[in-house]
Amino acid sequence: MMAKLPGLGPRSARRAVLHMIRKRALVLTPLSEVMATVAATARECLNCGNVGTADICDICNDPKRENGQMCIVEDVADLWAMERSGVFKGRYHVLGGTLSALDSIGPDELRIPRLMSRIGPEAVQEVILALNATIDGQTTAHYIADQLEGQVSVTSLAQGVPIGGELDYLDDGTITAALNARRPV
Amino acid sequence: MMAKLPGLGPRSARRAVLHMIRKRALVLTPLSEVMATVAATARECLNCGNVGTADICDICNDPKRENGQMCIVEDVADLWAMERSGVFKGRYHVLGGTLSALDSIGPDELRIPRLMSRIGPEAVQEVILALNATIDGQTTAHYIADQLEGQVSVTSLAQGVPIGGELDYLDDGTITAALNARRPV
Repeated sequence: MMAKLPGLGPRSARRAVLHMIRKRALVLTPLSEVMATVAATARECLNCGNVGTADICDICNDPKRENGQMCIVEDVADLWAMERSGVFKGRYHVLGGTLSALDSIGPDELRIPRLMSRIGPEAVQEVILALNATIDGQTTAHYIADQLEGQVSVTSLAQGVPIGGELDYLDDGTITAALNARRPV
Repeated sequence: MMAKLPGLGPRSARRAVLHMIRKRALVLTPLSEVMATVAATARECLNCGNVGTADICDICNDPKRENGQMCIVEDVADLWAMERSGVFKGRYHVLGGTLSALDSIGPDELRIPRLMSRIGPEAVQEVILALNATIDGQTTAHYIADQLEGQVSVTSLAQGVPIGGELDYLDDGTITAALNARRPV
């Protein structure tokens, strides 16, 4: 079962399992208890789709974060990435994936209707699309931007050279995007 | 000697050397001839610092590329990266490095005086700073932008999420830059 976790192959799964069995009291028992607790208490925020222990997550409950900005992310891992950077002070909306014709995932399979219904009541002024710079992510971004047109200002994360990035190691698409989006110094 | 080339360790150098010795006639002789030719003919363009076989390189000689844009890069590898993307149609200026107080590299060790002297005669309207998004690269970019202030418009490549980039794998600095430089959709 461990080998089915993402990022663990059969070999590293065996190593992890052996380690846990050897350190039964120190590792395995506490881990199994934590897992049982999380399994019993973790749930998705009914408002934004973040993971928490209550029906409404801490970010949605925090009145300081109702600042008129809403950041749209694909999944909770992306929300965590944004929170790690500590630069965004508004609220989130977790789509739970991207639109995909191949996997027949349409707007109703994602949390898009819920997004529309939050704009007015939470006084959102700006929707920031922080979707991955992949084809599916950008398709989804365009769909949402179309839906929100005229209601609220829609922005998206800048595309360009990552911090520390050296031109020689970048793909052509990124160089093209960075040149097209060049800004005055 | 092969092991001193960048990107080759002692082990891969031995493999390459053995391959060349085994295929003497097919690989080693032609390669040594090409190397001798390049050693005899390659030189730096006196104008921009690009590598070519004449005193003035093909890009500087091409009147179609005198379009008022000049792209500043650190070295020839970055120029090649920009050319691979095919999106830039103007001329280049290769600095030959970055300013560095630690290595006592000042403006005169780079090709910065030469850059200043090109602005007028080549009718440059826009200088595009395509320096690496490293600390030294950005310091150099700010220095050049200061020097050119008032003479010509100065832009730099956008910083942000690289194409195909997933938020979860990006560093905090890039996420912060991408959020701060967000643009209307």
